[in-house]
Amino acid sequence: MPVSRREFLSTAALSAGVLTAGPFSNFELRTSNFQGPVVDAAILRRRLEALSIFGRPTNGTFADGVSRVAYSDADVAGRKYVIDLIHGSGLEPRIDPAGNIFAKRAGTEPSLPPILFGSHIDSVPSGGNFDGDLGSLAALGAIEALDRGSVRTRHPLEIVVWSAEEGVAFGRGLAASRIVAGDVKPADMDAVWNGMTRADCVRKIGGNPARIMDAVRPKGAHHAYLELHIEQGGTLERDKVAIGVVEGIVAIQRYTAVVTGFGNHAGTTPMAERQDALIAASQLTLAVREAVNAKPGRQVGTVGQLNVEPNAPNVIPGVVRMTIELRDMSTPKLNEITADIRQRASAIASSTKTKIDINELSTNPPALATEDVQRAIDRASKSLGLSSRRQPSGAGHDAQMMAQLGPMGMIFVPSVAGISHSPRELTKWEDCANGANVLLAAVLEMDKV
Amino acid sequence: MPVSRREFLSTAALSAGVLTAGPFSNFELRTSNFQGPVVDAAILRRRLEALSIFGRPTNGTFADGVSRVAYSDADVAGRKYVIDLIHGSGLEPRIDPAGNIFAKRAGTEPSLPPILFGSHIDSVPSGGNFDGDLGSLAALGAIEALDRGSVRTRHPLEIVVWSAEEGVAFGRGLAASRIVAGDVKPADMDAVWNGMTRADCVRKIGGNPARIMDAVRPKGAHHAYLELHIEQGGTLERDKVAIGVVEGIVAIQRYTAVVTGFGNHAGTTPMAERQDALIAASQLTLAVREAVNAKPGRQVGTVGQLNVEPNAPNVIPGVVRMTIELRDMSTPKLNEITADIRQRASAIASSTKTKIDINELSTNPPALATEDVQRAIDRASKSLGLSSRRQPSGAGHDAQMMAQLGPMGMIFVPSVAGISHSPRELTKWEDCANGANVLLAAVLEMDKV
Repeated sequence: MPVSRREFLSTAALSAGVLTAGPFSNFELRTSNFQGPVVDAAILRRRLEALSIFGRPTNGTFADGVSRVAYSDADVAGRKYVIDLIHGSGLEPRIDPAGNIFAKRAGTEPSLPPILFGSHIDSVPSGGNFDGDLGSLAALGAIEALDRGSVRTRHPLEIVVWSAEEGVAFGRGLAASRIVAGDVKPADMDAVWNGMTRADCVRKIGGNPARIMDAVRPKGAHHAYLELHIEQGGTLERDKVAIGVVEGIVAIQRYTAVVTGFGNHAGTTPMAERQDALIAASQLTLAVREAVNAKPGRQVGTVGQLNVEPNAPNVIPGVVRMTIELRDMSTPKLNEITADIRQRASAIASSTKTKIDINELSTNPPALATEDVQRAIDRASKSLGLSSRRQPSGAGHDAQMMAQLGPMGMIFVPSVAGISHSPRELTKWEDCANGANVLLAAVLEMDKV
Repeated sequence: MPVSRREFLSTAALSAGVLTAGPFSNFELRTSNFQGPVVDAAILRRRLEALSIFGRPTNGTFADGVSRVAYSDADVAGRKYVIDLIHGSGLEPRIDPAGNIFAKRAGTEPSLPPILFGSHIDSVPSGGNFDGDLGSLAALGAIEALDRGSVRTRHPLEIVVWSAEEGVAFGRGLAASRIVAGDVKPADMDAVWNGMTRADCVRKIGGNPARIMDAVRPKGAHHAYLELHIEQGGTLERDKVAIGVVEGIVAIQRYTAVVTGFGNHAGTTPMAERQDALIAASQLTLAVREAVNAKPGRQVGTVGQLNVEPNAPNVIPGVVRMTIELRDMSTPKLNEITADIRQRASAIASSTKTKIDINELSTNPPALATEDVQRAIDRASKSLGLSSRRQPSGAGHDAQMMAQLGPMGMIFVPSVAGISHSPRELTKWEDCANGANVLLAAVLEMDKV
């Protein structure tokens, strides 16, 4: 199947030589016994490579990852590439007021709600080329496979490319899928990030901030939401399992901790008289790990951001600002860990003569995947001869927002060495294709329900 | 004694209202039984207040401190203020090729080497208004006191305002007094800092980088070097001692530590599989303190600067870069502590699955004050009825460079609460005047030796 003549290919992509002309045959797909339509794996790979151009480091290659931060020029260019692809497939892309890209394929029973599936294409700074991109391009590939096979579905099918999933912008992580789920008020558009208002940002990607409330969808707006994503952890690869069937997405609690000591001369202040904010912050960083590890289970806790003031070699740190992030499927467990951290922080403040203020930054409840959708993914994997198992998602996804509107399920494929949010993020092309085919088959399974 | 008509008073200083017109009588000087010349305390205070304008935070007051970083526009403006003051006193200021300001008063025996005294007027970012400023302006005040009293000295007297003492610029702390002591090569002028070469910086303040080697003075260039400075620690105030007679300046060793872990997704990477650079850096920060405290004595050690990469709440820190600074009068003791820190770092790297590289950034040997000069300061304090005691200096000073060229001594006055390198740095006006008078009297004592 040749690439559509209308498919957008940037001259940058061509001149960078990422679009190999040769045959695409260095892996075997397990589709031999499968009778249904399959996604074109060669086109899927070619598009992932082409999309990687937008936000690639100067003089880099595909392996150098991508910085396609939401609302950046690279994001705008990447979105244009995908919008042109959707046009090329014969669908009509539509940008909602929040900047999300939707496109619908009619079903045989127009009164039924659509089956919605897709992902995002924005990235963290210095991220990889699979996180989000795979699920977005696989969704389009699934539609094209149905077209090729002249397969009609009862439900309308709707693909989506969510905006700003990575939540780098606007602190609080106001992903545009959150807006669609109803967590938005007009004043949110006035928030400022990197000198731009959210309204300017949304306008830059073709949204309409004045009509932002129209982006909200009601409960029951879709029959089911499905999302294919890389695992971003290493368990599927380690255990040689092809497909992860997501049971739910963990709750995430984020806090800021501000440690206030007293910045003084590093040469003249005796050790015993110091109020060193970094000594306290170091103890707190270790205490977070201890509190998380004190309970059995899969919960994780991270101090990922830490800034020292005044941050000079010859000045005792006066203030340290840091983040604490906790994740688990159980909110009560997270609350217990938070209480433990607060207690440890209080003891640290007292012994270091500092003040420690811990404040909640954001909190997401866990989002459970729907049993029906999980079973559809199980069946889809089985029909393709792929091993699968159930597991929670430690990462947040747009799917957790969609779980508020209706049935939700997610498909994971292995991440090599569990590396993600890194240029070294990698999923084998075979696993990309397997995931895309499971997505397609699960959509067809859900169409029967 | 009215302020000289030629004394520079900026309109900014006048409009900010810092130059009070009223009498200056809210403290008593202990000069009742003293027969020699004394420094004009009111003028000294007025000049400290006027100088504080240059680099003051917007809408701030004297109490809000100063950011007069070397080579900044504020530094240039502050230097112009002091140069105009020197002109006003009838001396001829001279800028050496390194940008240091010198001015000489003739002695009765022109063949004798000069007695050199002064300090610096650059500051750390968000520093105080006494560190350096006091010693610089007191030196000029001492000359004027001799002029007023028509006192001639045998030795020529030379005052100096050193450039770039705070060593914020050019990493390695290439203070311009270091150049005068001979630690310079022409290529140093090519170093780049904040987008400016050192040559540009030196030129900006009136130096001549092309002739930088001419700034070097030979051993024996001065009869003695004296410097009045605030203690920057809290011991004189705590023990109610008026004058500290410095026995020497501690050795300073600075290191960088780079902790390399692996930046990965904070939600999907199990706790046990992490290579968290900040966990290792926190343990190292605490280990530095433990290694320093493991020995008896007055040594200090500080992790003052710490930067996390990528520094995002949802990414496990991949790299942490930090500084380690150690100070003591004994270099062998510092070497033992460094060895201890390296050993602890190696154990931390191994247990956290990270790599820790510790490299020397700079090292200064201790600089002992000359016994003759210490005794001259003892006698000067006694003649003024001021209590004094001997003590090391935990802070570095230009005096340590001058110790390489000839006899050196330093006079400390109390810092309120030991606070320095902070806008809250404060020395009482009475102590400023006492210090200036001890400086003057010690210069006269040294003139007899």
